Amino acid sequence: MLPAAAGYDRAITVFSPDGRLYQVEYAIETVRRGTLAVGIKSKDGVVIAVEEKARKLQVSDVTQKIFQIDDHIGVAAAGYIPDARTQVDHARFFAQSNRLIYDEPVDVEGVAKNLADMAQQFTQYAGVRPYGVALILAGVDKNGASLYQTDPSGTYIGYDAVAIGMEVIRLMNSWKKITTPTLAWKKQVALLWNQYISSVKRKLVQGISKWHR
Amino acid sequence: MLPAAAGYDRAITVFSPDGRLYQVEYAIETVRRGTLAVGIKSKDGVVIAVEEKARKLQVSDVTQKIFQIDDHIGVAAAGYIPDARTQVDHARFFAQSNRLIYDEPVDVEGVAKNLADMAQQFTQYAGVRPYGVALILAGVDKNGASLYQTDPSGTYIGYDAVAIGMEVIRLMNSWKKITTPTLAWKKQVALLWNQYISSVKRKLVQGISKWHR
Amino acid sequence: MLPAAAGYDRAITVFSPDGRLYQVEYAIETVRRGTLAVGIKSKDGVVIAVEEKARKLQVSDVTQKIFQIDDHIGVAAAGYIPDARTQVDHARFFAQSNRLIYDEPVDVEGVAKNLADMAQQFTQYAGVRPYGVALILAGVDKNGASLYQTDPSGTYIGYDAVAIGMEVIRLMNSWKKITTPTLAWKKQVALLWNQYISSVKRKLVQGISKWHR
Amino acid sequence: MLPAAAGYDRAITVFSPDGRLYQVEYAIETVRRGTLAVGIKSKDGVVIAVEEKARKLQVSDVTQKIFQIDDHIGVAAAGYIPDARTQVDHARFFAQSNRLIYDEPVDVEGVAKNLADMAQQFTQYAGVRPYGVALILAGVDKNGASLYQTDPSGTYIGYDAVAIGMEVIRLMNSWKKITTPTLAWKKQVALLWNQYISSVKRKLVQGISKWHR
Amino acid sequence: MLPAAAGYDRAITVFSPDGRLYQVEYAIETVRRGTLAVGIKSKDGVVIAVEEKARKLQVSDVTQKIFQIDDHIGVAAAGYIPDARTQVDHARFFAQSNRLIYDEPVDVEGVAKNLADMAQQFTQYAGVRPYGVALILAGVDKNGASLYQTDPSGTYIGYDAVAIGMEVIRLMNSWKKITTPTLAWKKQVALLWNQYISSVKRKLVQGISKWHR
Amino acid sequence: MLPAAAGYDRAITVFSPDGRLYQVEYAIETVRRGTLAVGIKSKDGVVIAVEEKARKLQVSDVTQKIFQIDDHIGVAAAGYIPDARTQVDHARFFAQSNRLIYDEPVDVEGVAKNLADMAQQFTQYAGVRPYGVALILAGVDKNGASLYQTDPSGTYIGYDAVAIGMEVIRLMNSWKKITTPTLAWKKQVALLWNQYISSVKRKLVQGISKWHR
Amino acid sequence: MLPAAAGYDRAITVFSPDGRLYQVEYAIETVRRGTLAVGIKSKDGVVIAVEEKARKLQVSDVTQKIFQIDDHIGVAAAGYIPDARTQVDHARFFAQSNRLIYDEPVDVEGVAKNLADMAQQFTQYAGVRPYGVALILAGVDKNGASLYQTDPSGTYIGYDAVAIGMEVIRLMNSWKKITTPTLAWKKQVALLWNQYISSVKRKLVQGISKWHR
Repeated sequence: MLPAAAGYDRAITVFSPDGRLYQVEYAIETVRRGTLAVGIKSKDGVVIAVEEKARKLQVSDVTQKIFQIDDHIGVAAAGYIPDARTQVDHARFFAQSNRLIYDEPVDVEGVAKNLADMAQQFTQYAGVRPYGVALILAGVDKNGASLYQTDPSGTYIGYDAVAIGMEVIRLMNSWKKITTPTLAWKKQVALLWNQYISSVKRKLVQGISKWHR
Repeated sequence: MLPAAAGYDRAITVFSPDGRLYQVEYAIETVRRGTLAVGIKSKDGVVIAVEEKARKLQVSDVTQKIFQIDDHIGVAAAGYIPDARTQVDHARFFAQSNRLIYDEPVDVEGVAKNLADMAQQFTQYAGVRPYGVALILAGVDKNGASLYQTDPSGTYIGYDAVAIGMEVIRLMNSWKKITTPTLAWKKQVALLWNQYISSVKRKLVQGISKWHR
Repeated sequence: MLPAAAGYDRAITVFSPDGRLYQVEYAIETVRRGTLAVGIKSKDGVVIAVEEKARKLQVSDVTQKIFQIDDHIGVAAAGYIPDARTQVDHARFFAQSNRLIYDEPVDVEGVAKNLADMAQQFTQYAGVRPYGVALILAGVDKNGASLYQTDPSGTYIGYDAVAIGMEVIRLMNSWKKITTPTLAWKKQVALLWNQYISSVKRKLVQGISKWHR
Repeated sequence: MLPAAAGYDRAITVFSPDGRLYQVEYAIETVRRGTLAVGIKSKDGVVIAVEEKARKLQVSDVTQKIFQIDDHIGVAAAGYIPDARTQVDHARFFAQSNRLIYDEPVDVEGVAKNLADMAQQFTQYAGVRPYGVALILAGVDKNGASLYQTDPSGTYIGYDAVAIGMEVIRLMNSWKKITTPTLAWKKQVALLWNQYISSVKRKLVQGISKWHR
Repeated sequence: MLPAAAGYDRAITVFSPDGRLYQVEYAIETVRRGTLAVGIKSKDGVVIAVEEKARKLQVSDVTQKIFQIDDHIGVAAAGYIPDARTQVDHARFFAQSNRLIYDEPVDVEGVAKNLADMAQQFTQYAGVRPYGVALILAGVDKNGASLYQTDPSGTYIGYDAVAIGMEVIRLMNSWKKITTPTLAWKKQVALLWNQYISSVKRKLVQGISKWHR
Repeated sequence: MLPAAAGYDRAITVFSPDGRLYQVEYAIETVRRGTLAVGIKSKDGVVIAVEEKARKLQVSDVTQKIFQIDDHIGVAAAGYIPDARTQVDHARFFAQSNRLIYDEPVDVEGVAKNLADMAQQFTQYAGVRPYGVALILAGVDKNGASLYQTDPSGTYIGYDAVAIGMEVIRLMNSWKKITTPTLAWKKQVALLWNQYISSVKRKLVQGISKWHR
Repeated sequence: MLPAAAGYDRAITVFSPDGRLYQVEYAIETVRRGTLAVGIKSKDGVVIAVEEKARKLQVSDVTQKIFQIDDHIGVAAAGYIPDARTQVDHARFFAQSNRLIYDEPVDVEGVAKNLADMAQQFTQYAGVRPYGVALILAGVDKNGASLYQTDPSGTYIGYDAVAIGMEVIRLMNSWKKITTPTLAWKKQVALLWNQYISSVKRKLVQGISKWHR
C-alpha cells in the first residue's frame, strides 16, 4: 500500500502538488497485486502464460486471463480481469475493422497503441475510473514476432521478455542477465522458461499460448 | 461487515491506495448475505435451485429468484433481486436477438459473458452503482451442459458445481471432495444434492429448475 | 428511525460496507410511516382499501390513494402519494399500450413487473431518488384474481392478502392464522375484513374498490 | 423554523433515515410564510382572494398573486411568487392545448393534477429545487364549481374552502364549524367571507376573483 | 452583509429550513450594493436615470447602465452590470421578434414578464447562478407610460416611481409623500427629480433617458 | 492576496452573503499580477503596448501578448495569456463573419461587447472557470479611434488611455492629470508615452502596435 | 513539491485568491519531473533529443518520447507520455487536414498554436484534467527552421534552443551564454550539443531526430 496522499487521490482528474496522478498509481497497484502474467519473445516466435488460481470446482479448461484478439495476436492480463475483457473486446473489433478496411491483418503495435490510447482517455476525463489491468500483447506480424505491454496509465512499451503481476521485479532481474533475443524461438523460450519456472516455484502455469512464424 | 476504508468506498469510480474497488466489494457483500442459490452440472444435464424465505401470505407457487432466459437457459440469483430481474430482461433480449439474427439458440457462455460485460460497465462509469447480485446460469447448448456464475465485478467463471449466498464456503468445501463431473446426470445430481441437503439442513428449497439433454 | 449509517446513506448509488442500499431502506421507511393500505384476494375476487385522514373541509368523495389502472386493475398506495400518481400514470399508459398492440387486457403481473422494474431503475442511477411509495395492485385477469405488492426497492411479490403502511406487522400476523384463499370471494373478504377492522380499530376506511369475476 | 436535520436536507433527492424529504418540507415552509390566499366554494360558484402587501409607490391595480388560467379557471398563490408564474404559464398552455385538441374547456381537476405532477417531478430529479409555492385553483366546469389546492410535494386535494399562507390553521379551524357547501353561492360566500374577515382583521384583501355558473 | 446561513447558501437549488433561497437573497444583496438607478412615471411620460462612477480616463459619453430595448422601451440597471447586458440582449431579441410576428411594438409589461421569467429559471435549475442585477424598465406603449422593476428572484412589479441600488430606502420613503401620478409629465418629473436630487446630494447623474408620448 | 472568503470562493456560480462573486474577483487578481499592458488614444490614432519578460533563448521577434483581430483592430492582453488567445480567436472569427455578412469592417465596440458577453457567460454557468485575462482593444473604425478594455467579469468600458496589469494604479493616477484627448495623435502619444516610460522605468516595452487613420 | 494550497487545488476550474490555477501548476510540476528533452535550432536546421531510461528487457530501438507529426515536423515530449501521444495524434490529424485542404505542408507555428489551444481548453472546462506534458516542436517550413515549446497551461513560445524536464534551469543558463543562432546548422548544433552533453553527463541520449533544410 502506498503512503497517504492527503486527498489528492479521490478525484480522478486531479494532479497532486508533486505532479502525480494518484488514481493511475492505485490502478497500477491493482495490477501489481494481480497474479503473474509473462510474455517471452525470440526472433521467430512468442509465448505468453498466466498463473491462474482456479476456484473450487471451476471448469479446468477455461482460462480467464488469456484472450485471442485475432489469428496472430493474443493477450495475457494481470489485475482486474473484467476490465481486461472490455479492452480485449475493443481490440478484437479494432483488428477485424482493420482486416475489413485494409484487407490485411493488423500490426501488433497498432493494437498496443490503440489499447493504450483507450486507457489514457480513462485517466483524463471525469466520470470514469482508469482501467485496473495491464496487458501483454503477443503476436507475429509482417515485422516478425512482437511483444508489447500496456498499463493503466496509457503507456505501451515493446519488450523482449516481460512479466506483470506479483513478484515481477525479482523475476525481471534474473531474466535480464540471460536474455539473448537473437536465439531461435525454441532455445530462447526454453532458456527463459526454465528461468521463469525456477523463479516462481509455486505451481504450474495453467494457460499457455504460443505464436510461431 | 468489512473494515473501515477511510473514504475510498464512497465514490464508485475510485481505486483505493491498495488498488481495491470498495464499491464492488460491498456489492459482493450484498450477494454474500443473500439467500443460498446453487447449480450442479453433470455431463448430460444441469440443475439450479434457490432457497426462498416466503413472506407471510405470499402466493407460494411464485418463485422470485429463478428465471428462464430461453428454452435452454435458466438463472438462479442471490443478492439484490430487483437487479437480477433487470439483468435477466437484458439476457432474454440478447437470447432472442441471437435467435433472430443467427437462427440458432445462443450459447450459455455467450449469455454469461454478455451479463458480465454489462456488470463491468456499472463498475467503471460514474452515475450508477454496481449490480448487487450474482447469477448462476445453467443451460444445455451444442457444447453440452453448461454452468456459469457471474458477479458484481463483471467476472464470469465456468463451474461443475457452484453456490452463492450465505454459508457458501462450507458447502463448497464439502462438495469439492466428491465432485465427479463425468458421472451421468442423475447420479451426479443425486450425489451432490444429498450433500447439499445435509450441509444446509435448514428448510426445503422451494425453486428447482432442471435442464436435461 | 433507523440507526446512524456513517454517511453511506447520502448518495443513492452507493453500497455500505455491509452491502446495504440505505436510500432504498429510508424510502421503505417512508412507506412504513404511511397510512394503512390493504388488499385481500379470494379465488374469484379481490378487494383493496386505504385509510384516509381527510384534511379539514376536504371534498369527501375524492380519494387520493386508490387509483384505477384499467377496467380490471386497481392500485392502493401507501407512502409518498405524489410518487404513486406518477407510477400510476406510467401503468395506465402501459396498460393502454398493451390493449392497442395485442388487443387484449394486460395481465396484472405484467403491470406489477413493469412498475417494479421502473422502481429498480430509480435505485441504480444517479440524479434521482427512489420512489417513496409501495403499491398494492389488485385485478382480475385470465388467470383469475391477482394481488401483487411493489416497493421502492423494485421488488414485487404475489400475495393472498397484504397490507402496507403503519401497524402492518401486527395485522399480518393475525391474518396469517385465518387465511383460506380457496374460500369464495364473499366469505374470504368477510373473514379477513372483520379481522382487519378489529385489528385497526381506528376509524372507517374511506376508499374501497372491488373487482369480481 | 424546523429542527436541524443533520445534513439530510441539503441534497434534493435524498431520503432521511426516518423517510422524510426535507427539501420538500422546507419548500412547504416557504408557502407557510407567504401571505394569505383563500378560496371558497359553494354549489354554484367559487371565489379566490389574496392578501397583498403593496410596496411603496407600487401601481395599485396590478395584482401579483392572482392569475387567470382560462376563461373559467383562476389561481391564487402563496409562497415564492416567481415560481407560481412559471406554473401558471404551464397551466395556460395545458388549458389552451386542451381546447385545441378536444375542442372543449379543460376540467379544473385536470389542471390541478397536471400542476401537481409537474411539482412531483421537481422533487425526484436532481439539478432542480422543488417549487416554493402552493396554488389554489378555482373554476367552474361541467361538474360545477371546483376548488383544488396543490403544494410543493406534488399533492393536490379538492376542498370546499381552503386557505394557504400565514395564520392558516386558526382560520381553517374556525371555518370548519360553519361550512355548509350545499348553500347557494351568495350565502355560502357571505358566511365564510365574514368569518374570514373577522379572523384576519388585518387589512382589506386586494385581489378578488369570482367565477359564477 | 446577511447573518451566517449554516451552509444552506452554497447550493443554488436548496431551500433552507425556514424556507429561504439564500443564493437569491445574496444576488439581491449585489443589487443593493450597486449604484443608484431610478425611474419616474407620470401620466404621459417616463424617465430613467443612473448614477455612474466614471473610471479614470473613461470615455465620458458612454453609459454602461442604461440600455435601449426598442424605440419605446429603455432599461436602467443596478448590480452586476455584465448580467444586465445579457438580459438586455435577450429583451431586444424578444422585442424584435414581437414586431416581426405581430407587426406591432411589444408591451412594456410583456418585456418585464419575459425578463422576470428568465430570472426565475436561473433560481430553480442547477449549473447556473441567479442574475445579480435588478432592472427598471420604462416605456410608453398603447396603455400609456409604464414603469416596471425586475429583480434576481424573478419578481416584477409595476411602479409609479422606483429606485434600486444604494440608499434606496430613504429615497423611496421621501418620495412616497409627494407622489401624484396624475400630474402631467413635466410637473411630475420635476417634483420627484428635485426630491431625488436633494435626497442623494452626491453628484450629478450621468445617464438620463426619457420617453414621452 | 484577498482576505479569506469562508468557502464562498470555491464554486463558480455562487454569490457570497455580501453579494460578491469571488471567483470573478480572483480572476481579476490574475490580471492584476500580469505584466503591464497599455493603450493610448488620440483623436486620430491609437497605440497599444505590452511589457514582455522574454524567457531565455526565446525568439525575440515573437510577441505573445499583442494580437491582430482584423486590419483595423488590435488587442493587448494582461493575465493568463492562453485565455487571451482563445478570446482573440473568437474575435477574429466574429470580425471575419461581419465582413462576410455585412461587407464592411466590424466596429471596435462591437468586438469589445462580443468579448465581454463571452466572458459573462463564463461567470454564470457551472463547469467552466472565468477567463483569467483582461484585454485592451484598440482600433480605428468609422467612428474614429477607439480604445476599450474588457475584464473577466464581462465588463467593457471605453477609455482615452488605459493600463492593465501590475503598477496600474500609480500609472493611471499620473496620466489623469495630463490627458488631453483632443490633441493630434503624435502629440498625445508622445505626451503619455513619456509619462508611461518615466512611470514604469523598468525595461523597454517589446511589443508595440499602432493604428492611425 | 509546492507549498500547501488550502483546497484551491482540488477543482480544476477554480482560481485561488491570489489568482493562480493550481491544477495547471501541478501539471507543469509533472513536466518538471520528467526526463530531459531538448531542441536546438540553427539558421538552416533543427534537432531534438530525449533522454530515455529504458526499462529492463525493453526493445531498444523503440523510442517512446519522440514522435513524427509530418515529414517536416517532429515532437519531443517530457512529462506524462500517454498524454503526449494523444496530443501528437491530434497534431498529425491537423497536419494531414492542412495538406488535404490547402495542398501544402502545415507551418510549425500553426501546429504549436493548435496544440496550445487544445491544452488551454483542458484548463477551463470541468470534467477533464490539464495535459501533464510539455512538447518541443521542431521542423523546417517555408520560414526556415522553427522550434516551439508548448506546456500544460496552453502557452507556446518560439526558442532558439530549449530544454524541458529535469535539470533544465542549469542547462538553459549555460546555453544562454554561447547561443549564436546565425551559425550554420552543423556548427550550432555541435556547439550546443557539446554544451548539453557536458551539462548532463548522465548517459547517452537515446532518441535523436534531425530536420535539415
